[in-house]
Amino acid sequence: MHPYQSMDFCVADLNAAISINGFPCKPASKVSANDFFFDLSKEGVTNTSNLNFSITSANVLTFPAVNTLGIAMNRVDYGPGGLNPPHSHPRASESGVIIKGRVLVGFVTTQNVYYSKVLKPGEIFVIPRGLVHFQKNVGKGKALAYTSFNSHLPGAVILANTIFGSQPSMPNEVLTQAFRVEDSVINTIKSKFGS
Amino acid sequence: MHPYQSMDFCVADLNAAISINGFPCKPASKVSANDFFFDLSKEGVTNTSNLNFSITSANVLTFPAVNTLGIAMNRVDYGPGGLNPPHSHPRASESGVIIKGRVLVGFVTTQNVYYSKVLKPGEIFVIPRGLVHFQKNVGKGKALAYTSFNSHLPGAVILANTIFGSQPSMPNEVLTQAFRVEDSVINTIKSKFGS
Amino acid sequence: MHPYQSMDFCVADLNAAISINGFPCKPASKVSANDFFFDLSKEGVTNTSNLNFSITSANVLTFPAVNTLGIAMNRVDYGPGGLNPPHSHPRASESGVIIKGRVLVGFVTTQNVYYSKVLKPGEIFVIPRGLVHFQKNVGKGKALAYTSFNSHLPGAVILANTIFGSQPSMPNEVLTQAFRVEDSVINTIKSKFGS
Amino acid sequence: MHPYQSMDFCVADLNAAISINGFPCKPASKVSANDFFFDLSKEGVTNTSNLNFSITSANVLTFPAVNTLGIAMNRVDYGPGGLNPPHSHPRASESGVIIKGRVLVGFVTTQNVYYSKVLKPGEIFVIPRGLVHFQKNVGKGKALAYTSFNSHLPGAVILANTIFGSQPSMPNEVLTQAFRVEDSVINTIKSKFGS
Amino acid sequence: MHPYQSMDFCVADLNAAISINGFPCKPASKVSANDFFFDLSKEGVTNTSNLNFSITSANVLTFPAVNTLGIAMNRVDYGPGGLNPPHSHPRASESGVIIKGRVLVGFVTTQNVYYSKVLKPGEIFVIPRGLVHFQKNVGKGKALAYTSFNSHLPGAVILANTIFGSQPSMPNEVLTQAFRVEDSVINTIKSKFGS
Amino acid sequence: MHPYQSMDFCVADLNAAISINGFPCKPASKVSANDFFFDLSKEGVTNTSNLNFSITSANVLTFPAVNTLGIAMNRVDYGPGGLNPPHSHPRASESGVIIKGRVLVGFVTTQNVYYSKVLKPGEIFVIPRGLVHFQKNVGKGKALAYTSFNSHLPGAVILANTIFGSQPSMPNEVLTQAFRVEDSVINTIKSKFGS
Repeated sequence: MHPYQSMDFCVADLNAAISINGFPCKPASKVSANDFFFDLSKEGVTNTSNLNFSITSANVLTFPAVNTLGIAMNRVDYGPGGLNPPHSHPRASESGVIIKGRVLVGFVTTQNVYYSKVLKPGEIFVIPRGLVHFQKNVGKGKALAYTSFNSHLPGAVILANTIFGSQPSMPNEVLTQAFRVEDSVINTIKSKFGS
Repeated sequence: MHPYQSMDFCVADLNAAISINGFPCKPASKVSANDFFFDLSKEGVTNTSNLNFSITSANVLTFPAVNTLGIAMNRVDYGPGGLNPPHSHPRASESGVIIKGRVLVGFVTTQNVYYSKVLKPGEIFVIPRGLVHFQKNVGKGKALAYTSFNSHLPGAVILANTIFGSQPSMPNEVLTQAFRVEDSVINTIKSKFGS
Repeated sequence: MHPYQSMDFCVADLNAAISINGFPCKPASKVSANDFFFDLSKEGVTNTSNLNFSITSANVLTFPAVNTLGIAMNRVDYGPGGLNPPHSHPRASESGVIIKGRVLVGFVTTQNVYYSKVLKPGEIFVIPRGLVHFQKNVGKGKALAYTSFNSHLPGAVILANTIFGSQPSMPNEVLTQAFRVEDSVINTIKSKFGS
Repeated sequence: MHPYQSMDFCVADLNAAISINGFPCKPASKVSANDFFFDLSKEGVTNTSNLNFSITSANVLTFPAVNTLGIAMNRVDYGPGGLNPPHSHPRASESGVIIKGRVLVGFVTTQNVYYSKVLKPGEIFVIPRGLVHFQKNVGKGKALAYTSFNSHLPGAVILANTIFGSQPSMPNEVLTQAFRVEDSVINTIKSKFGS
Repeated sequence: MHPYQSMDFCVADLNAAISINGFPCKPASKVSANDFFFDLSKEGVTNTSNLNFSITSANVLTFPAVNTLGIAMNRVDYGPGGLNPPHSHPRASESGVIIKGRVLVGFVTTQNVYYSKVLKPGEIFVIPRGLVHFQKNVGKGKALAYTSFNSHLPGAVILANTIFGSQPSMPNEVLTQAFRVEDSVINTIKSKFGS
Repeated sequence: MHPYQSMDFCVADLNAAISINGFPCKPASKVSANDFFFDLSKEGVTNTSNLNFSITSANVLTFPAVNTLGIAMNRVDYGPGGLNPPHSHPRASESGVIIKGRVLVGFVTTQNVYYSKVLKPGEIFVIPRGLVHFQKNVGKGKALAYTSFNSHLPGAVILANTIFGSQPSMPNEVLTQAFRVEDSVINTIKSKFGS
């Protein structure tokens, strides 16, 4: 039998010498039950920035079993006031379920319509692929959500970091014109994003 | 502006006169924030059969916003001993997170390898597309999971019902030969599945 | 010219050191006409089990030319009474043509509707992706069919083997609850499938 | 239950008021077993042109069950010397099995490499998507093949008709330059293709 | 012949009563050569905002022939200093060719790496799907580019408008936290985007 | 961080030991801005054959950044009377914009309908996937077009070369029957295509 025979799955070999926008498969003989299960039970540390939130990812880079299966998950912890800031996923639609707390979920369409709602535990949301969205803990204590994606590595374009924190830095002349503010405003924001 | 202009999403119009393995879009002018959120907070009634479990679905038929987005979710409630019986999804890979209880998750590959693990809250699993799998509550109380799919209507082939409960009934001569049992065994099982 | 230049095809190199749910390509310089043709003329040996049938596969593992082309074929031989037992293909829709004999073809939808017909030579069938189906020789002599798939490796979930013959074995407590039979029935069937 | 609920299949409603590069689905309540089976047992009439061959198609236009399933079949009959002339399928890879006769199967890659073989009954071929190919009966009597495609409507670009028989006609100045022949040669060929 | 028979194309019927994230096809009998050609020769009016640029789109909404073909184009005119401001396309990769002027093209990856170059006429760029990018006329006179997409309606998330100009407005508490600025800065920017 | 971590892009490593109908990715650490830009500013040499045209390609083989992004471009130069001869792309739809000259663009559907138009600078065309098409410079001087594809390697089946210039040669008995001409005509044309 060919060592990769079934193609039912393709557990990623993250140490492979090559990558093909995806990963080679681990030989089936080295795959065990543990490959298909992953622990997202541990609360993330949220107080590392003013955003007061934390993402723990189960995508192909951390959970190799999802390689080529078109699926991934995240655990999102929010401290009080915690914000998963405006971002988009270039390669996936997203759904999510609130497990704890009160979470404001919002997104904006390409027509600039903003849709939002405060969700309670057990309520779910869907974000169409590529649209800008955020979640903010608007309850009193911590909040928790699990999110799912239809890609094994959805990627995330975090707007503030993309615009104001890239390496090298996006030129001020582009940002002042795009956002209609002075250089000084851009410089102030950039300084907060290490750019 | 064209009433369906953005194509960011395509909220299903379930009352449309036609269907195209998917649904026509509701006009954008009739779409509101509520379309993109869905309530899976209500515990399902599990004691309606010996399986002692319940599925509440958020797919295109109940949550029209996922139309064409390639994503859907389910809430799965398990009473004590509850079983989401062996089944496969013809059109999706699946991931799931355990929220409450102890849940045995198992699946079988096309090479007849059985992979399984007992999961605790916060642990997740992945099921490659089309493979037979089940979850069983092996803890003391109730259990709860949320599952996600990369299709807006993954479908479910529930093996026992498919084999022994179809309408009309699959012929006994096929089933006795396939499962290597007598007619009487087939008839006994069929009688329990209303066939 | 790059050795893999055209991408018209990608004949699988089954001996490659890696696999990526598909196979690397053989260099174009080593591809010859013979790669694109395959012999399914030889009648399979059908009397190796009570099922009295045989599958000869032309998929990427045996016919490397179909690698990445999204197509595969099988030859199916049926002895008298032969049964291609209930199974599903996790990664493909199927069509098939009867060449010899009388063959009962049946499948069951996710709504538990059973569709079937006895086919004669030259008649064809289609099985939607992922649904459970079977073919049984209901004529007097041998039967023969050629089947086609829209995947280079459709895979097969053979229900009886999946449920009763996996390694390790699916737990009895799951099977008795799912199929509503006693342990003894499960044990009897499992013993016939080597589990 | 929604009339189109399962999405296991989407039998085409060829009389629908609209088309969407595919067809709307027949309501599930009007689908019967016969929808999924099709008769390709009848030998085609081959002597209607000098090509001495005949195609009988089971694609979405004749066999509505394949709608959205990504699969279609053809029956190809060849009289003595019959030729399925050089053509390509813009939307599908193809496989085929010879049932009767001796058939020369050839195709040309985008690198202008010609691969061919004379096939006997039970032998199969594969044609990568979009490449030019033909089959010619090189045996003494009739020949028969069944071909399969990974599209519900693969389409066919028949080269001679496309180049010399379109309506309106492709300009001579294009054809003389492309094929490096005089107007008179082009006119002679065009006259045979009704252009 | 079925009025929509070939499926070679599916010219959109923008006035159809329904939409399916795409459009129904115009009957083939009403399709003419003009459907497949579109005029992007007219220079856009660029001085309507401080951005001093203009987009003329040939997507499914303006050029119905691209419906279902997975392709679209834009003409982009830039006045002196003109900026196609930072944006992303949720449903397409993009390529573009500069025809006139000197244009700075930049994009940022999900790893926050900024790649950029000043392009001259005849030079091309590629933007991976979903990533934030911009073009700025850095030459002395006008500039012109043609861009292409692998979607019939790629959509555009224009960051400044999405963040500061949506209807209704994204909450200040989200924006101050995400961008680490005071309410007053947010309000100033919002006022410029009509929110 | 994994060397291939983001999957935003996958710049091809054309020197990799393997190919998988696409190419492995260059490590992200070796990717620079220059990878994403390409020079198509140089006029091609058109007078190398009677066709008097030239293609300069920016596909995965020359512009590795487009690997897996589903996009490619060509520069097409036409001398006076230059012809991009009838051909089809097996793996892509195409759009194109005329930059200089007067260019007749024509294509033929699978129903043998010929659509054409003479385009001026700034006008665009679209060719549905897999259909035969050509462009001919019908103006007085040189002409120039940029074309785009929704594949990183669309491939080209150039009809005259495919039919009359393959190696080995397509048999005369096939060609005389398909095109309804004498052997002498076939031999004359073949001699011009080196076959």
